[in-house]
Amino acid sequence: MTASDVMDATAGKIAAFGAVFENRASAGRIVLVCEHASAHIPAPWGDLGLSGEARFSHIAWDPGALELARGLSQRLDACLVHAPVSRLVYDLNRAPNQPGAMPARSEVFDIPGNAAIGPEERAARTAAIYVPFHDDLHVEISRRMALGLAPVIVTIHSFTPVWYGQPRAVEFGVIHDADDRLAREIVAHAPEGMVTRMNEPYSAADGVAHTLRLQAGPYGLPNAMLELRNDLIATPGMAMAMADRLAPCLAAALAALSEGLR
Amino acid sequence: MTASDVMDATAGKIAAFGAVFENRASAGRIVLVCEHASAHIPAPWGDLGLSGEARFSHIAWDPGALELARGLSQRLDACLVHAPVSRLVYDLNRAPNQPGAMPARSEVFDIPGNAAIGPEERAARTAAIYVPFHDDLHVEISRRMALGLAPVIVTIHSFTPVWYGQPRAVEFGVIHDADDRLAREIVAHAPEGMVTRMNEPYSAADGVAHTLRLQAGPYGLPNAMLELRNDLIATPGMAMAMADRLAPCLAAALAALSEGLR
Repeated sequence: MTASDVMDATAGKIAAFGAVFENRASAGRIVLVCEHASAHIPAPWGDLGLSGEARFSHIAWDPGALELARGLSQRLDACLVHAPVSRLVYDLNRAPNQPGAMPARSEVFDIPGNAAIGPEERAARTAAIYVPFHDDLHVEISRRMALGLAPVIVTIHSFTPVWYGQPRAVEFGVIHDADDRLAREIVAHAPEGMVTRMNEPYSAADGVAHTLRLQAGPYGLPNAMLELRNDLIATPGMAMAMADRLAPCLAAALAALSEGLR
Repeated sequence: MTASDVMDATAGKIAAFGAVFENRASAGRIVLVCEHASAHIPAPWGDLGLSGEARFSHIAWDPGALELARGLSQRLDACLVHAPVSRLVYDLNRAPNQPGAMPARSEVFDIPGNAAIGPEERAARTAAIYVPFHDDLHVEISRRMALGLAPVIVTIHSFTPVWYGQPRAVEFGVIHDADDRLAREIVAHAPEGMVTRMNEPYSAADGVAHTLRLQAGPYGLPNAMLELRNDLIATPGMAMAMADRLAPCLAAALAALSEGLR
């Protein structure tokens, strides 16, 4: 979508930003979701009053996450669903009634364009970004369930190595919501030598499990959220190397889960 | 929608059957949902091989539920969302991976048109009926959350007074899923003299809480499913009289809940 597509000239309304699909025809069980794939801020929201540094920092997106997700999609024959808009406009891993959906502050950055938004602007962003993404994802998950493909939902994120000035030792975080079956198997099959932790650097208690709760929870689908430290996937080559390490882990975890369900 | 709208002549695809809205502009907290409002079987599915008796019996819809929901919508200034298609084609209170979504048998009736459907037909019905209804409902609930209206989800159903030859004594059933806050307040404020029971004649353990789990659960919205014995709402006049009795109960339950949350 280009900037000129954003405004519907006839209606004066903001266009809808649906999900982007890759490898949609795949019949594999894993559906990869990358809610923070893009740092793009569409025209209606200008630069949100941010400097270029802030607009391309980890507060705007998860650097490396999309490249890693693409690598995993290819290696695992998995459908990939990703977002076209920065989380600074709407964070797709937050519900419309969570304060972090349109954050006024993220780590050390104030976000001026989000400082004083009212209910109408919240509803407009929800309708333009949150609903189309999650409804597109819901269409795909529903289709796969109806076809008997027994989908498994894996969200792919990255985190900054330094947070409020403190370095983080964890390299690979595996986060679960109410259903921890898949997360436990992923940790059990984590790549040799990676500093892997369950529910670090965040957990569902921090409100970060929204996509899992919305898209997998109601259907009892196995699910997990993967967090990679972004210095480990800083270039496309590094992201591909990480996909080489993680794909066998996910495949083994899924096989173990299927074994357990038999 | 008329039968001639059902088939998209150009694409040869089945059209989508979205949700029907009434009182959508209401700013009240309660969103009423009636998944079994209609006995209509659209043209692509003929009569599913059923007799007229079966097609208009309680297996096809919840008689009286829509009239009751309309009465409540008017008395409580509540938005009402209802379904345009019989649950015999797709039961909107079931997920695409639940067997009851497209049942081959319901109580004492076989449903020939559902006896031998494969994955493609299941996916087609899911895409045409399940996804549009629930995505339309999701749009509305998301909008209300973003506007700060703090929605509360109440689904309206009816049940047959005789089931497999056994009469049922319960008149008013209040069913909850994981969150029982609203259900407890509704039972506490139930109309004088009504035989009211929690989790009868069904409970979430029977797989009947799908809409609550899908639409309210992920957002932590208070929710409940109401079941009225259909002989008590058999005519429009009886349904309106029941709305007169139930509206104060729901209003009092919501007030008590809001009090408790302060």
